Amino acid sequence: MARLPDPQDPLFRALNSSVGFDFRLAPQDIRGSLAHARMLARQGIIGEEDLAAIEKGLTDVREEVEWGSFEIREGDEDVHMAIERRLTELIGAAGGKLHTARSRNDQVATDMALYVRDGAAKAGRLVGDLMQALIEQAESHLDWAMPAYTHLQRAQPVYLSHHLLAHFWRLRRDRLRFAFAFEAAGELPLGSGAVAGTTFDTDRDFLAEQLGFPRVGENSLDAVSNRDHVLDLLSAAATCATHLSQLGTELVLWSSDEFGFCEVADAFASGSSLLPQKKNPDAAELLRAKAPRIVGRLTTLHGVLHALPLAYNKDLQEDKEQLFDAVDTLELCLSVAAPMIAGTSFDRARMAAAAADELLAATDVADLLVRRGVPFREAHGMVGGLVREALASGRGLSGLSAQALERLAPGLEPEILAELVTGGGVLESKVSAGGTSLARVREQLERARAALEERA
Amino acid sequence: MARLPDPQDPLFRALNSSVGFDFRLAPQDIRGSLAHARMLARQGIIGEEDLAAIEKGLTDVREEVEWGSFEIREGDEDVHMAIERRLTELIGAAGGKLHTARSRNDQVATDMALYVRDGAAKAGRLVGDLMQALIEQAESHLDWAMPAYTHLQRAQPVYLSHHLLAHFWRLRRDRLRFAFAFEAAGELPLGSGAVAGTTFDTDRDFLAEQLGFPRVGENSLDAVSNRDHVLDLLSAAATCATHLSQLGTELVLWSSDEFGFCEVADAFASGSSLLPQKKNPDAAELLRAKAPRIVGRLTTLHGVLHALPLAYNKDLQEDKEQLFDAVDTLELCLSVAAPMIAGTSFDRARMAAAAADELLAATDVADLLVRRGVPFREAHGMVGGLVREALASGRGLSGLSAQALERLAPGLEPEILAELVTGGGVLESKVSAGGTSLARVREQLERARAALEERA
Amino acid sequence: MARLPDPQDPLFRALNSSVGFDFRLAPQDIRGSLAHARMLARQGIIGEEDLAAIEKGLTDVREEVEWGSFEIREGDEDVHMAIERRLTELIGAAGGKLHTARSRNDQVATDMALYVRDGAAKAGRLVGDLMQALIEQAESHLDWAMPAYTHLQRAQPVYLSHHLLAHFWRLRRDRLRFAFAFEAAGELPLGSGAVAGTTFDTDRDFLAEQLGFPRVGENSLDAVSNRDHVLDLLSAAATCATHLSQLGTELVLWSSDEFGFCEVADAFASGSSLLPQKKNPDAAELLRAKAPRIVGRLTTLHGVLHALPLAYNKDLQEDKEQLFDAVDTLELCLSVAAPMIAGTSFDRARMAAAAADELLAATDVADLLVRRGVPFREAHGMVGGLVREALASGRGLSGLSAQALERLAPGLEPEILAELVTGGGVLESKVSAGGTSLARVREQLERARAALEERA
Amino acid sequence: MARLPDPQDPLFRALNSSVGFDFRLAPQDIRGSLAHARMLARQGIIGEEDLAAIEKGLTDVREEVEWGSFEIREGDEDVHMAIERRLTELIGAAGGKLHTARSRNDQVATDMALYVRDGAAKAGRLVGDLMQALIEQAESHLDWAMPAYTHLQRAQPVYLSHHLLAHFWRLRRDRLRFAFAFEAAGELPLGSGAVAGTTFDTDRDFLAEQLGFPRVGENSLDAVSNRDHVLDLLSAAATCATHLSQLGTELVLWSSDEFGFCEVADAFASGSSLLPQKKNPDAAELLRAKAPRIVGRLTTLHGVLHALPLAYNKDLQEDKEQLFDAVDTLELCLSVAAPMIAGTSFDRARMAAAAADELLAATDVADLLVRRGVPFREAHGMVGGLVREALASGRGLSGLSAQALERLAPGLEPEILAELVTGGGVLESKVSAGGTSLARVREQLERARAALEERA
Repeated sequence: MARLPDPQDPLFRALNSSVGFDFRLAPQDIRGSLAHARMLARQGIIGEEDLAAIEKGLTDVREEVEWGSFEIREGDEDVHMAIERRLTELIGAAGGKLHTARSRNDQVATDMALYVRDGAAKAGRLVGDLMQALIEQAESHLDWAMPAYTHLQRAQPVYLSHHLLAHFWRLRRDRLRFAFAFEAAGELPLGSGAVAGTTFDTDRDFLAEQLGFPRVGENSLDAVSNRDHVLDLLSAAATCATHLSQLGTELVLWSSDEFGFCEVADAFASGSSLLPQKKNPDAAELLRAKAPRIVGRLTTLHGVLHALPLAYNKDLQEDKEQLFDAVDTLELCLSVAAPMIAGTSFDRARMAAAAADELLAATDVADLLVRRGVPFREAHGMVGGLVREALASGRGLSGLSAQALERLAPGLEPEILAELVTGGGVLESKVSAGGTSLARVREQLERARAALEERA
Repeated sequence: MARLPDPQDPLFRALNSSVGFDFRLAPQDIRGSLAHARMLARQGIIGEEDLAAIEKGLTDVREEVEWGSFEIREGDEDVHMAIERRLTELIGAAGGKLHTARSRNDQVATDMALYVRDGAAKAGRLVGDLMQALIEQAESHLDWAMPAYTHLQRAQPVYLSHHLLAHFWRLRRDRLRFAFAFEAAGELPLGSGAVAGTTFDTDRDFLAEQLGFPRVGENSLDAVSNRDHVLDLLSAAATCATHLSQLGTELVLWSSDEFGFCEVADAFASGSSLLPQKKNPDAAELLRAKAPRIVGRLTTLHGVLHALPLAYNKDLQEDKEQLFDAVDTLELCLSVAAPMIAGTSFDRARMAAAAADELLAATDVADLLVRRGVPFREAHGMVGGLVREALASGRGLSGLSAQALERLAPGLEPEILAELVTGGGVLESKVSAGGTSLARVREQLERARAALEERA
Repeated sequence: MARLPDPQDPLFRALNSSVGFDFRLAPQDIRGSLAHARMLARQGIIGEEDLAAIEKGLTDVREEVEWGSFEIREGDEDVHMAIERRLTELIGAAGGKLHTARSRNDQVATDMALYVRDGAAKAGRLVGDLMQALIEQAESHLDWAMPAYTHLQRAQPVYLSHHLLAHFWRLRRDRLRFAFAFEAAGELPLGSGAVAGTTFDTDRDFLAEQLGFPRVGENSLDAVSNRDHVLDLLSAAATCATHLSQLGTELVLWSSDEFGFCEVADAFASGSSLLPQKKNPDAAELLRAKAPRIVGRLTTLHGVLHALPLAYNKDLQEDKEQLFDAVDTLELCLSVAAPMIAGTSFDRARMAAAAADELLAATDVADLLVRRGVPFREAHGMVGGLVREALASGRGLSGLSAQALERLAPGLEPEILAELVTGGGVLESKVSAGGTSLARVREQLERARAALEERA
Repeated sequence: MARLPDPQDPLFRALNSSVGFDFRLAPQDIRGSLAHARMLARQGIIGEEDLAAIEKGLTDVREEVEWGSFEIREGDEDVHMAIERRLTELIGAAGGKLHTARSRNDQVATDMALYVRDGAAKAGRLVGDLMQALIEQAESHLDWAMPAYTHLQRAQPVYLSHHLLAHFWRLRRDRLRFAFAFEAAGELPLGSGAVAGTTFDTDRDFLAEQLGFPRVGENSLDAVSNRDHVLDLLSAAATCATHLSQLGTELVLWSSDEFGFCEVADAFASGSSLLPQKKNPDAAELLRAKAPRIVGRLTTLHGVLHALPLAYNKDLQEDKEQLFDAVDTLELCLSVAAPMIAGTSFDRARMAAAAADELLAATDVADLLVRRGVPFREAHGMVGGLVREALASGRGLSGLSAQALERLAPGLEPEILAELVTGGGVLESKVSAGGTSLARVREQLERARAALEERA
């Protein structure tokens, strides 16, 4: 640039240059430059012919980028210089006027804010696709019984639809988080200059409107150094990825021989190099594996920002690779998760067999005693005794002798107990709002459909 | 509880027991239990006398908690059992009815959601106090010149007010994040039972209204395992702490002999055990130091949640210490930061001397050339040449000879250059929106005051 | 201390004071002070009577600390001041001489290095206890068959002993890491003064010898700011905790109804507040849950140290809570893990049934074909075909018809195939070093016993 | 591979395929395959002609890799398959025999262990280069005075050589850490098969010797899932990067106009796009910025490994990108740091002026009083009083009136005080081992040279 007569050390160049990874900002950079040029002309800072040349030139550059014919040159330190260099090759002196009333500091901040908005919007759409897949699978398996687990121990039976919808609601919150990140990135940095504003009579409201920003950054020092929106998007992505890791874990677990609840489609599985019998749920494992990566990108950026004085510091360049990797990773995970969920087949018999475990009715027995006037804590203790006896006897709750019942839960009739634990009413007994009874799940499905439709 | 006849290993108890840290949820737990009891009575699940006893008992327990006279007993595994145990001591059998239609899973989820909402609201208020302190210092130092830095190199002069307000806007975004976390924690978990809902005819809308939740959790599996709102609050806290680390860094830097821009009040500094001459800005250093801690708490919880299958798992217990430590740390940092900022005195002369560096006017010189028709890139290069010459000559830009000027920037008059770089107009030249000229800073201050007033 | 006439703000005090958490360094601090006093006397810097008084006084203080009668006073900012204050109360003016040729900077660095060495040594011992428990369980279950899993899919049968020993070797590496951390903390900081050394003629070699440090810190600036050994211990703890999370995960998995491979003793499990039938493997879940916490402590300290200029900065105070929490957490986890492993009972029949899956012999079939001259890749493909056919037919590999065999693996005799996949030879066929055949496991056990005995 | 008839989903392929990043393991993979083939032939498992063909083929493949002519094909899922596919193209059926007695699980584990060893060794060498540069700069600036800082406040004067060597010792510990990581990766995984060992009579000792591993992995389950050595290298890299961030911070600070202690060479600096006068120390900023990235890679891998059951899981694939990025980043940082340090010029006058601050002699005054019999704490208090008076009077310690001295430090002669604080003896007074007096620094330099020479 200026003032430094000596050439840069090639290793320093390798460390310093960002064009290798920030060139993907080219669409945002060109969008920003077009708006900037129009504003400059509108304010009379550059002439109309200059604007025409710049518009033509940038359009050509954009085409080169889109067609993959843009050539990055050795001296192009970053995407901004690469594009300006090419523009000047194409249109000559007018290209040198584009950077009037602008610096790389507000320019890159603007590119990143645009990128964050694009990324947040896309993530929201992809989350929506996965929500859709979950709803559809829930509808197809509305009344399939399975155990719900706490501590990975069978706890109470639920419908598979209810279980799948639990994941739906997590994703719905993720979509709200992406919407927040989109909104939070709504402060236009452009027009802040290097750090203090510019001496030109610019129109930042016009810029904001051109670029779709609802607000103009209020303070030039803040605007060029603010990376909060990158943190916001990374944080939303981290939470979403953590949710996907939980979904992935369950698919891995359920695909095991021991659970045997589901089978992912071949299209999302792999064979083994040594074990010809294996069908490995690799996609589900990778969903599980990717969350720490995205969390790691978030913490990296927090670390980079830690203890930085105002305003722009070169350290901020580290925001890009973190964001790009997180966005790419999450987009790929979401893109795979939706069809994988859609293509997973469930084994009704194995799930039902697991759900038929009589012990899963224990709470219902306690609730029955409560309804008959036993305080809950006492009822809970009595049923605990029944369970111990049932396990010791090896005959299940329904096989407990009348004597045992009389001793452990006086007044509880054997036939009523047996009916309760074997009659299949346990699922339908969970009538509370948000519970697993069919009526409630149907209600839930309706709300889920509505939630899916609403603009995030 | 039930079924397990053998006593727990004392080391396992030490690992498993949470009452040592979760007892701080007692106010939330009691609030939740009161609402639950009222709902049970309203629905006829417990009697009115039971409710009266429970209300009386819980009120007494709350008083014991508030007065510090509540005694935690050896067997009290967690806050829920401690309070129920004490309640039952106080009111007898009725206490055993309170847990009807509830489990520890939805109970602790509710306590945590209430705590998150309390914590988010309080953090928002404390951020407001610091915003206030910044506004006041900005008003008191409206037109004090200082250098703005990029790469920690002096870049352009700004007013101290403008610099301080940069921190204001960061905090304002933090307040919006806390508001989002508050809102996100608005789904009531209570009434979801252990995992599948309950068999009782409960009224969760009533519960939600009693406890101030705008919404009822839609899915029982999700409700008992959802810790998203804890992540949300931790993420907001992490970003805010990172901002405070940046503020702290500047105070440390400015307090150095080399900068000499400010001095924190004695009330926020320490002496040294070996160096009698030292006044150390410990509070500012600690603001800087605490951000990684809060980020570490956030990543810990992400890690805990990673790969957890539905629904409740004991691992979720790890959410508490992370949240409590982050909340305590942030509250303390914010509480110290506001009066520290308010009590910091600035050294006008040293700041002004630093801002008077003629080179800080270089952009203005370039802009002047642009106005005279030189394309920006060319103007930038010419000024780079002037700067090199000025540094080499040791006489500053204003001391450049007419010959040098003629050679390096043909047409630039020496007297105009000298006026530009020494006349003090550089600050006022930054007239763009969000720039540092006084009119713009005054505008900014007004908006800042308005932003402070608005409900986050 | 000195120079600051104004009182500290109470909130700043709360932020700044460390005595609430660093008082646990009292034993190390007293050890260091005793050595320092002896050195001072030996070098003639203080008199023998002063030394006698200081020794007597510090011994009394140590007793107060051990008996829990030491009272921390309001003004005691940290453990160093608390102890010196108390010492001076006890012995008068001589107490004021102890700090000669020392500063809090080298003092606290020394305390921490001592603490790290103590902590590393203790962690090594506790890891040894768990290694012992694993060896014993391996010996008791030497020839119990079970499936080994890859991708959580059954892959090949192994002996339970072999599986348990896999965890043994991980822990053995952990012990080596703790030994490295112990060794790495072997540079004595004491004698470095505040930052530049001291003006007194001290004898640091004597100090090192008294305190058990093999080396003297070579550079005073480095010595007072070096926290590498804290990172080393945290890193070793993080890896160990990650290993424990993997052990915990397996216990949770194996305790599920679906796997049913093991049952942890009641002493390490909990019942449920709502589900009377539940026995939850809480201890195993907590082993799983704690790793991210310790990793979080490590990254926090990395974050704190990031971008700190030389030498001592207040930020370094943040090392303590991270280290203490990690050490406490890991010690508790290890202390629980050893007896939990020792007390876990395994279900031979269920493991054997799972291991009897004929498909687990697929590799052996491929290897047989290889021995008969089929290139491995071809053999692998042929067995893949057999497996597909076996799954389709529902009769297992041993039930494949002669025609199918002839078509898919020409030359493979049905009876030889059947013998291979049902004869139980698959376990013993893994004769390679480190494989699961009994002879190899016995070899391994011997090495494991030897490794356990060696000084880490 | 086997059994899965349906084609993989293209998005799943994109998620699952690793050849895009793991192809850099090609050299390690080929090394491992050559050793494996030789072992197979030696044991009679493959024929000598097969070996000859494989050796020829792999040598050709290696050449293609080295010359950049190796073509990755669409179906090449990972580096292992790409190389085997190409090998088979080149040599036909014999290529299909290479995978005998091996699986991708032990193969990739071996590749990674080899890579870790290569990476650790190279990092050690690069650290050595930077140590060398620091020693040389220390020698060139042996007796240049500057202030040492605590809390970024001037504390005591030191020599620049002493300050630079503080960084040297940190790096020396880093080199020991890389040596530990190298050693820790010394367990050969190859020969462990997929998970349980192999049925062939292999010779793992021969393999180990061929590949330079000192030990053979003791347990097949552990060997295929062990990534401890990756954590070890990442942890060593994280600590080293944190050290570099501290070095970078100081260069940024010292390059500021306010400090003005040094100037980095143009070859490691950048100009500004808007500010023609700027010379920004970008390389130093990037050293500062990269540490959180490497720490983030470490925590990512911890997160991936968290809660993984034995043995191989697809999640382990995530180890690669974390390691590669960390290794690349650290290597580049170290490669830049060494010449940047070597090329930095220091400003003797500005450093000396800062070090001449009379207050930096305060400890020496206190020590003098101690030598005259005043207990340290009292002496410290008296000097605190002198400092306050000196600051208030504005005349420095040497300008204190005899009356003031008599009042505040009775018996302290004005001329002795003046000589002490202005005579330049303060640097040479720090005679303790590891202190800044010239004799000590010379001692230190000798040890540093010796430490540099020793094999890490």
